[in-house]
Amino acid sequence: MAGARVKIIPLGGYGEVGKNSTAIQCEDDLVAIDCGLMFPGGDLPGIDLAIPDCSYLVENRHRLRGLILTHGHEDHLGALPHVLPKLDVPVYGTKLTQGLLTVKLKEHGLRAKQVIVRPGERVAMGGMSAEFFHVNHSIPGCVGLALRTKAGIVVHTSDFKFDQTPTDGAPTDFGKLAELGARGALALICDCVRVERPGYTPSERVVAESLDQIFFDAPGRIIFTTFASNISRVQQALNAAYRFGRRMAIVGRSLENNVAVATELGYLEIPEDTLVGSERMGHYPAEEMVVAVTGSQGEPTSVLARIAADDHRQIKIAAGDTVIISASPVPGNEQTVSRTIDSLFRLGADVVYGALRPVHVSGHASQEEIKFILNLVRPQFCVPFHGDYRQMVLFQRLAGQLGFPAETVLLPELGQGIEFGDGKARFSERVQAGTVLVDGLTVGDVGQAVIRDRRQLAEDGVLLVSLVLDREKATLIGRPQIASRGFAYAREGDNLIEEACAHLLANLDHGPAGSAEQVSRAASDSLTRFVYERTHRRPLILPVVNEV
Amino acid sequence: MAGARVKIIPLGGYGEVGKNSTAIQCEDDLVAIDCGLMFPGGDLPGIDLAIPDCSYLVENRHRLRGLILTHGHEDHLGALPHVLPKLDVPVYGTKLTQGLLTVKLKEHGLRAKQVIVRPGERVAMGGMSAEFFHVNHSIPGCVGLALRTKAGIVVHTSDFKFDQTPTDGAPTDFGKLAELGARGALALICDCVRVERPGYTPSERVVAESLDQIFFDAPGRIIFTTFASNISRVQQALNAAYRFGRRMAIVGRSLENNVAVATELGYLEIPEDTLVGSERMGHYPAEEMVVAVTGSQGEPTSVLARIAADDHRQIKIAAGDTVIISASPVPGNEQTVSRTIDSLFRLGADVVYGALRPVHVSGHASQEEIKFILNLVRPQFCVPFHGDYRQMVLFQRLAGQLGFPAETVLLPELGQGIEFGDGKARFSERVQAGTVLVDGLTVGDVGQAVIRDRRQLAEDGVLLVSLVLDREKATLIGRPQIASRGFAYAREGDNLIEEACAHLLANLDHGPAGSAEQVSRAASDSLTRFVYERTHRRPLILPVVNEV
Repeated sequence: MAGARVKIIPLGGYGEVGKNSTAIQCEDDLVAIDCGLMFPGGDLPGIDLAIPDCSYLVENRHRLRGLILTHGHEDHLGALPHVLPKLDVPVYGTKLTQGLLTVKLKEHGLRAKQVIVRPGERVAMGGMSAEFFHVNHSIPGCVGLALRTKAGIVVHTSDFKFDQTPTDGAPTDFGKLAELGARGALALICDCVRVERPGYTPSERVVAESLDQIFFDAPGRIIFTTFASNISRVQQALNAAYRFGRRMAIVGRSLENNVAVATELGYLEIPEDTLVGSERMGHYPAEEMVVAVTGSQGEPTSVLARIAADDHRQIKIAAGDTVIISASPVPGNEQTVSRTIDSLFRLGADVVYGALRPVHVSGHASQEEIKFILNLVRPQFCVPFHGDYRQMVLFQRLAGQLGFPAETVLLPELGQGIEFGDGKARFSERVQAGTVLVDGLTVGDVGQAVIRDRRQLAEDGVLLVSLVLDREKATLIGRPQIASRGFAYAREGDNLIEEACAHLLANLDHGPAGSAEQVSRAASDSLTRFVYERTHRRPLILPVVNEV
Repeated sequence: MAGARVKIIPLGGYGEVGKNSTAIQCEDDLVAIDCGLMFPGGDLPGIDLAIPDCSYLVENRHRLRGLILTHGHEDHLGALPHVLPKLDVPVYGTKLTQGLLTVKLKEHGLRAKQVIVRPGERVAMGGMSAEFFHVNHSIPGCVGLALRTKAGIVVHTSDFKFDQTPTDGAPTDFGKLAELGARGALALICDCVRVERPGYTPSERVVAESLDQIFFDAPGRIIFTTFASNISRVQQALNAAYRFGRRMAIVGRSLENNVAVATELGYLEIPEDTLVGSERMGHYPAEEMVVAVTGSQGEPTSVLARIAADDHRQIKIAAGDTVIISASPVPGNEQTVSRTIDSLFRLGADVVYGALRPVHVSGHASQEEIKFILNLVRPQFCVPFHGDYRQMVLFQRLAGQLGFPAETVLLPELGQGIEFGDGKARFSERVQAGTVLVDGLTVGDVGQAVIRDRRQLAEDGVLLVSLVLDREKATLIGRPQIASRGFAYAREGDNLIEEACAHLLANLDHGPAGSAEQVSRAASDSLTRFVYERTHRRPLILPVVNEV
């Protein structure tokens, strides 16, 4: 093995907005692990998604032996519809992951070479091989993997926690982790997103106990929401429904799709006589119904948001309804979720959410679980992934408590490859990487200027001024037209627009006006100053000159 | 007393955005308690502040006997510069509250009749009288009050918690609360914002212990931030600086102002040789310095945000710096604070924040303290204030556990008066109330249409089309001009703007174009459809027609 080198190249999720993707390269073989998306917050107005820049994979597609998906969450596979068409590579994943990917690809009219893998299985990928092992997370079919390379074993934890009593009965494969530790692992790529939390993340079983209590107490209908991909949680709600003699209906496209796929693939066990079509909701008394709906993040078009706005065709809140929000708000969604809860209370529902009862637990490892995996695997080197930069730093410190010297815990920037060989790690050359913004049909062309304009537009609105220029005489014709939107200027008895018009005329109307460009610039400057002096605001000023 | 009635009129902070204000009326006497503001989040783009609609106070100013400020926080006094000029009323408050109000009024070129009150003091206000009592909160000089009316005693808790070991040594006046209970209180207006939290809110002393440990460990400079009004916290940082032989400099206007006022009024004790001017920061070794700065919420123009952006003139992060964020993010600020922390870590600072150590405690009562005050005062009726609607509902439930029937805990909407008399409470007529949005120099004229436009502008940008119409011939002259900002349309090889122009001409150019208004509407409709079909986006389309 002497002399062989392996390179870990972080492409997404290492402290950046576009989510998880890692490339691993050894000699002429390249493997990619995950390719996810993020829904950015108000910070990037109007942006639908952020995905990793995968140019490196595209440029090296002749070396790319496989794309491994560790599980079916959007932040691990959501970028594939945008990236796969540029690659020609088999996609490896467990049955559920592949099922969810198929649904997603279909929506985009795409297909891929999908290879189903099972925990315990080992798959050759060029000169490397990947062995998959089961880990607990908030979706079934989640696997970590050990990538055997000529330079040593690289272990990727995927998103994980240690759940001793998970819904599906199978804890994280501690034995395999210990075995990899015994064999000697070169590097561990480790989920660090929950490193700020001391102790252990609670078991999914805690949620079952809460649900039992709530189902027992609820006087009427139960409306249940969680992440559409959280199949384990849907299983728990189904189990509770069965135990308390209720039927469950599913309302909301993503949840319906995921439940269908998970059921078909055997990841979801539907207790007898429990699931009913949403068209039959009304056939049962309220106290015998559970309705599972989309909208745990208060997404405006989701079923729960429409219920909260008293705007859903089928579901109206009635006295006695209990709403269970079995999810925590993703950072950035706190206010939306909070307002949804308020609206539901106002409509008369009882709402149970995380601050009141443990109806949600995280799918990610807390400090003690991170320590545990580090001590089980005892890798030579670690690379924390999935977290913000501060979480990467805190992971490094935590590992320090276990005796890992800081220089063995590497905190790369996106695109900053880390090369391992001969017992050493060093940063290698940087490859093109970063975040690509997706806005509607536009992928990647949403630049900083557009974002900056949108922020200004949101802040102070827009003022447009339209002028007509006589091309031959180079003089203005008629009065400037000024219109505004999203600009709050009115003060009593004030007529800012007319005064702005007059001001503009006074400034522009001296002799020849010059070229369209000159007129445009002069109008913009003059209006910007005038508006700021009068209102202390800076709306976006947009001049247009028509030449006739 | 038989037959006398008192009315509580909620004007701000009862589940709404504009913050705390309550009016209390008995016969021909009216008293207002607090008049605060909120800084709304991304939800109300470009809005600077939200304040309560105080029309009722203005219309009844001949009855208004006093405006009581319970403490100096923005969400209790921040609306005064906008409201006071319309009232002619003395303002009552403790020394620090008045000091902070004076600073604020001065900034607006205003003055008021300010009456300083002390805990224990009783002040007549028409036929009513207000007795003030000390409560613990995250600012000194905070008082609750008992308003004696002919119909009974109304107690207002202000923002409060029970701190057995507060920084200033004086716990909430439990004795007075018990006395009011013994006397028999008609109604309790009670802080409910933290009702979701079980147990007791930790004492401010917990923060002192954390600070000691951090100051002991910090190898270099300490940069400390908290809310500018949190004078107790500044005191704690000063105390820790003194204990560990460090000097403290203050950087940031609001913090400098508040420290100056609090020191002058005796609310802040500066340990000997501890405070130094910021111009002398460089004269001391890093390990002997603490710099207290503004920016605990990551506000873009604050000192800490500029430090985090590596953009502050005087303060650059160096290895060994420890940043202490002694505040929790206000709802809506989570992401900004999170990004600030990340940036500071990237620059090499160590950052200590709430998730890692108890460097902040809340100033509001948790469940056990709310139960305690309810059992001490045992009012006939309760009205929760300060919370969102869900917190008001949860307060009602908590009171239910203590034997308060639901109908004795009233959850009013803004403007919905509650009339008490003869042992009963009933909702009375509704008065004008609500939230007034302040945007720059514009107060109250920012309507929903402006907000809606801003949201659309932020989401998809703006597309403007300018046309020139020959007034006499009613035909278009020249080509339409189209310009866009914040609109991401580009796809490779695509020229949407030119095609949109052509499309528009094709649609409009048949014979007489009609009136300017008709042309404008036709252009807008045609362009909206075209752009949506091509991009699936809905930018704001702004047509302007110049008639020549």
